Amino acid sequence: MNTIGKSLRLTIFGSSHGEGVGCVLDGVPPGLPITVEEIQKEVDLRRPAEGIGTPRHEEDMVQVLSGSKDGLATGGAITLFIANKDRDSSKYLKFRDMPRPGHADYTAVQKYGDSHDIRGGGQFSGRLTAPIVAAGAVARKLLTEHGVTIGAYTESVGRVIDAKPRTLQEIVSFGRTNDVRAAAMDTAELMRQEILDAKAEGDSVGGTVRCVVEGLPVGVGEPFFDTVEGELAKMMFAIPAVKGIEFGAGFRAVGMRGSECNDPFIVVDGRLRTSKNDAGGVLGGITNGMPVEFRVAFKPTASISKPQRTVDLREMSERELMIEGRHDPCIVPRAVSVVEAAAALVLADLMVRGGFID
Amino acid sequence: MNTIGKSLRLTIFGSSHGEGVGCVLDGVPPGLPITVEEIQKEVDLRRPAEGIGTPRHEEDMVQVLSGSKDGLATGGAITLFIANKDRDSSKYLKFRDMPRPGHADYTAVQKYGDSHDIRGGGQFSGRLTAPIVAAGAVARKLLTEHGVTIGAYTESVGRVIDAKPRTLQEIVSFGRTNDVRAAAMDTAELMRQEILDAKAEGDSVGGTVRCVVEGLPVGVGEPFFDTVEGELAKMMFAIPAVKGIEFGAGFRAVGMRGSECNDPFIVVDGRLRTSKNDAGGVLGGITNGMPVEFRVAFKPTASISKPQRTVDLREMSERELMIEGRHDPCIVPRAVSVVEAAAALVLADLMVRGGFID
Amino acid sequence: MNTIGKSLRLTIFGSSHGEGVGCVLDGVPPGLPITVEEIQKEVDLRRPAEGIGTPRHEEDMVQVLSGSKDGLATGGAITLFIANKDRDSSKYLKFRDMPRPGHADYTAVQKYGDSHDIRGGGQFSGRLTAPIVAAGAVARKLLTEHGVTIGAYTESVGRVIDAKPRTLQEIVSFGRTNDVRAAAMDTAELMRQEILDAKAEGDSVGGTVRCVVEGLPVGVGEPFFDTVEGELAKMMFAIPAVKGIEFGAGFRAVGMRGSECNDPFIVVDGRLRTSKNDAGGVLGGITNGMPVEFRVAFKPTASISKPQRTVDLREMSERELMIEGRHDPCIVPRAVSVVEAAAALVLADLMVRGGFID
Amino acid sequence: MNTIGKSLRLTIFGSSHGEGVGCVLDGVPPGLPITVEEIQKEVDLRRPAEGIGTPRHEEDMVQVLSGSKDGLATGGAITLFIANKDRDSSKYLKFRDMPRPGHADYTAVQKYGDSHDIRGGGQFSGRLTAPIVAAGAVARKLLTEHGVTIGAYTESVGRVIDAKPRTLQEIVSFGRTNDVRAAAMDTAELMRQEILDAKAEGDSVGGTVRCVVEGLPVGVGEPFFDTVEGELAKMMFAIPAVKGIEFGAGFRAVGMRGSECNDPFIVVDGRLRTSKNDAGGVLGGITNGMPVEFRVAFKPTASISKPQRTVDLREMSERELMIEGRHDPCIVPRAVSVVEAAAALVLADLMVRGGFID
Repeated sequence: MNTIGKSLRLTIFGSSHGEGVGCVLDGVPPGLPITVEEIQKEVDLRRPAEGIGTPRHEEDMVQVLSGSKDGLATGGAITLFIANKDRDSSKYLKFRDMPRPGHADYTAVQKYGDSHDIRGGGQFSGRLTAPIVAAGAVARKLLTEHGVTIGAYTESVGRVIDAKPRTLQEIVSFGRTNDVRAAAMDTAELMRQEILDAKAEGDSVGGTVRCVVEGLPVGVGEPFFDTVEGELAKMMFAIPAVKGIEFGAGFRAVGMRGSECNDPFIVVDGRLRTSKNDAGGVLGGITNGMPVEFRVAFKPTASISKPQRTVDLREMSERELMIEGRHDPCIVPRAVSVVEAAAALVLADLMVRGGFID
Repeated sequence: MNTIGKSLRLTIFGSSHGEGVGCVLDGVPPGLPITVEEIQKEVDLRRPAEGIGTPRHEEDMVQVLSGSKDGLATGGAITLFIANKDRDSSKYLKFRDMPRPGHADYTAVQKYGDSHDIRGGGQFSGRLTAPIVAAGAVARKLLTEHGVTIGAYTESVGRVIDAKPRTLQEIVSFGRTNDVRAAAMDTAELMRQEILDAKAEGDSVGGTVRCVVEGLPVGVGEPFFDTVEGELAKMMFAIPAVKGIEFGAGFRAVGMRGSECNDPFIVVDGRLRTSKNDAGGVLGGITNGMPVEFRVAFKPTASISKPQRTVDLREMSERELMIEGRHDPCIVPRAVSVVEAAAALVLADLMVRGGFID
Repeated sequence: MNTIGKSLRLTIFGSSHGEGVGCVLDGVPPGLPITVEEIQKEVDLRRPAEGIGTPRHEEDMVQVLSGSKDGLATGGAITLFIANKDRDSSKYLKFRDMPRPGHADYTAVQKYGDSHDIRGGGQFSGRLTAPIVAAGAVARKLLTEHGVTIGAYTESVGRVIDAKPRTLQEIVSFGRTNDVRAAAMDTAELMRQEILDAKAEGDSVGGTVRCVVEGLPVGVGEPFFDTVEGELAKMMFAIPAVKGIEFGAGFRAVGMRGSECNDPFIVVDGRLRTSKNDAGGVLGGITNGMPVEFRVAFKPTASISKPQRTVDLREMSERELMIEGRHDPCIVPRAVSVVEAAAALVLADLMVRGGFID
Repeated sequence: MNTIGKSLRLTIFGSSHGEGVGCVLDGVPPGLPITVEEIQKEVDLRRPAEGIGTPRHEEDMVQVLSGSKDGLATGGAITLFIANKDRDSSKYLKFRDMPRPGHADYTAVQKYGDSHDIRGGGQFSGRLTAPIVAAGAVARKLLTEHGVTIGAYTESVGRVIDAKPRTLQEIVSFGRTNDVRAAAMDTAELMRQEILDAKAEGDSVGGTVRCVVEGLPVGVGEPFFDTVEGELAKMMFAIPAVKGIEFGAGFRAVGMRGSECNDPFIVVDGRLRTSKNDAGGVLGGITNGMPVEFRVAFKPTASISKPQRTVDLREMSERELMIEGRHDPCIVPRAVSVVEAAAALVLADLMVRGGFID
């Protein structure tokens, strides 16, 4: 379904080459101050950067269709809409019969039949993440009002890895100023080059986004199934191209001993803390007051201009496929905003559910 | 909440040292043949093995309280109950004030207050995975009747890694015959030793479980949010000690080029397949007919007998903590059954939702 | 929440005097043929009739923002939007302090505080039934394709009662041709006069809507809680002014003996039927193949021009209130379309859930 | 589905002649004091009375399988179980082929096939209301702790009607002391006689239950769909034999003018009240601080000993059916407890959702 969340509930709609994309966000507490400019600012960060992004030019102008009056949430459902402008659908029709490797073309047509709108990927398009970012801006505002800050950044692109775990301070101050959304200047340049290299070869690269959330109270998350990790993970896998997620030490924890991995409890300024954070801020599925930290793996963009092998479904014969269209050689920089927004939506929902936000 | 699933809906209940643990599984199609013996067999596989498992001795006898008649599901909710027998609660009370590092003690008491049943971890206990395995046996049977087979195995324990991705055939034939649940004899022995080494040091080790699912039709999974990956991930993070999950190439995909990572479509015996499976059987959140493959990371068991640093919450002063109790030095072998059951529940739910099972 | 339904899920949004009202309908099977004209036709039936309806003039032009391509549902969420045009908000602001009797003014302001958009009732406005009718047109189309027909009509207005239970044939052929939505010509005229009488006195009248659904297969409805009656009832009480619902013999059944009330099973043309239908087509919460029949009670419109007693909330002193604005002296004729649409949405959802519609 | 509620979520299970019936109640705040004796007391009130009830003798002993420790809710799911003892299934098997008029036999077998447990009605049995009453006792306790009191009583049985709307004081003081659950002594005797008359004729009678809830704060209920009326109605229609529900003036409102029906706002002791309560305590789907009042219509018990017409489904030929078994000639007295419990569950859920209960 196109709906996620229990107390703060998001429904997204639209398709890549239809009228537009949008969302309905239900459960926003009345009185939350939120302007279209604040939403627009976040949506703009998701737009492709010159040179390293897709040449498709969308203004992505957000319209507020409901739920706000005089800059305050009314308590009714908030509806946001982003019209599609730059639609060039001509190159997509052949993918119905010759599905693009790594794309949803084949599974979508199998599931939805001829009615699937294959243009631009239809409802499977990465363009559906625009309304997630827009709704996320509202959730983020709600979190900010309750002392919670979220920051994500491009931790790696292809072989370029920012090995130093960045602090929220670094992320917030630097991560929004460069077009690869890196948290450090040196890696930003290397990552940009890695993307341009792939682009020059008609190829694409993947990467990781690391996200840090500070200010969450102890006790957010619901056992047994609606854990902080589980809810974040489910949301993250909705972002196209995500193939993995880990919290805290994550896969590294596998090789540790318990005596190494357990975070000792200590007292700092009279408050309980842990001396390190391999748990990623979550114990038993519930926040422990330390920063929530996780890392999301993105595969390389599926659309590349290099020739690929596919099958002509009408004749069930193998073919070589050339994809024209307009695509991002690396989706990771644009995905940073999406990860932040997605995290904001999940955590705001859990905070409302847990009674931390009325 | 203690409920997961939409069309096949699981609710679990109970605690480690209360009357017992159990579950209600709603939405099982009437007429499914399922006996208590089939369920018991799966639950038995989750029991601790001699030597490498906890000395707590639970018979884990499954009772069917509702939903079955003459070996067939009636269409009503199926209720399964497993009484607790071997309860030694004496050693747990101090954890209310001196939370165990890496455990839910602290977060649970913060969230639930004095009413939290701290004995054995209460409702946060790994014992709650017993009813997941029991319910999973029903889901597995439903899948089997529709041609779907699930197999998981211990892929790594601490530093011992089974580097060869095992086939479902290997997993099914060997994985249930050894007490570490490895898929190959040589690694089984090494893993067993790794666990005994940690145990000897009063420590614990983590590991990974790899899971392979074959026979799923094309089209299982619901965009945008209820993807196969997202639903599986949410469920897996409910299993205590899970810190990461990846599908197909997962985190490895990050360093690939698109031309490497995309799985080319080919024709095999007149059917569409891919020539490799870095997508892990899922495109756009929907099964593509290839095996669904994923890997789950487990941190080392939090309970160790080595002394650890914690805080006495009454005095807010740092202390050294000695945990007595009875614990598994490595949870991974027992978690294999849980991963299989959890996967079965999610996939059966998605198949019912998608109309693949009436 | 603004969402209802499980497999066919409706989310409504908007407010009386904001940008407009709309909805997202998720779960519509791909390939369903549905045009904006078909939707518009139903929405037009909800518009106020000359003379007996409110003088507020809204074109209620439906826009399809997503989910349809070339007249077919794509399988993605369908978004429908109806802009507000004729907004005269000047007369509403005082209701924040002086709530209108019988209205949601008081409860809305208590629940949502100053952020509640009181203009036209905000998100509590009857105008929110416009997107229900629009979405209902899609659900109705889905039902029609599966042989299900829904017809509702004005059974009573104030003291004028159409005592003869009308057949679906009568409802469908006559009920859409007269502006009170009666199913017989003589009562139509009397009802019109009853409304005009109330209007002349600056007052309003209530009435009942009776609804008949034919063509439903046996087995629609889910025990124990998601019964046909329960799901329909929940939806109907969302329609402003509804105060009661009964199925089949309803409240009349109270005075019957079991031998009278039970519908005997008979065989007609080789199929099982009942010789009468006091059960209203539902046994044990599940359709039995007879027509589903129910009756909904509407109270008189709360907004009247006669002076009424209210309280000035700032001073907590009693006052006389004069309501200007523009209102329907009887909401029942317009509610007929809403009841039909609401029934269509519920029954289509239950049919999809039950596997009767893929 | 067998689950209802969002924040306080009830799942029921079991069947009339299986192991027993029970429920899982999830979302109960930790620390709520609740003993098995308090639950048992409510369940006992649902048991059949000597003379006017079914001769089936069930002890209905409640077991608490999870969620409570030392008389306090732990925050985990509460599981209650009631074993079946007095099972005489011999007389039910023929109903598979010869469905009882007015019963779910036909629809259940059509929906669930041969696997439906027809003994005693299986999962459609009125016996499933026992766990609703048990869970309702917990919800009632939660409401009591927040100042909310619920009382229901038998308002009519067949032709005997208690025309005077009883106050909560009358209901609570007298309604639990007589076996027909009437709120006045004279009507109690007449109702008892009406039931005995029907029984003497081998027939049954219906009736109404009226329910009054006091102490609810202003603002309970969620627009647009999760209204107080809609949520209560959905729950009530899950109770077998319910055919109608109305709030406040209900169907009587139909014949009123708006000036009559609107409840004027007044000030009493400095608080806003209405001078009468035709709205039944709900405006715009949300409580307005006045008592919530509603009336539920029960049809006569479907099982009667008089011969009835049915159809032999194997031969599709009409037959005369004699029902032996053991049945209540009037279900209404026993349903009073069920209506109270069902109301408690719905209102507690809405109060938790609305943040009135943490």
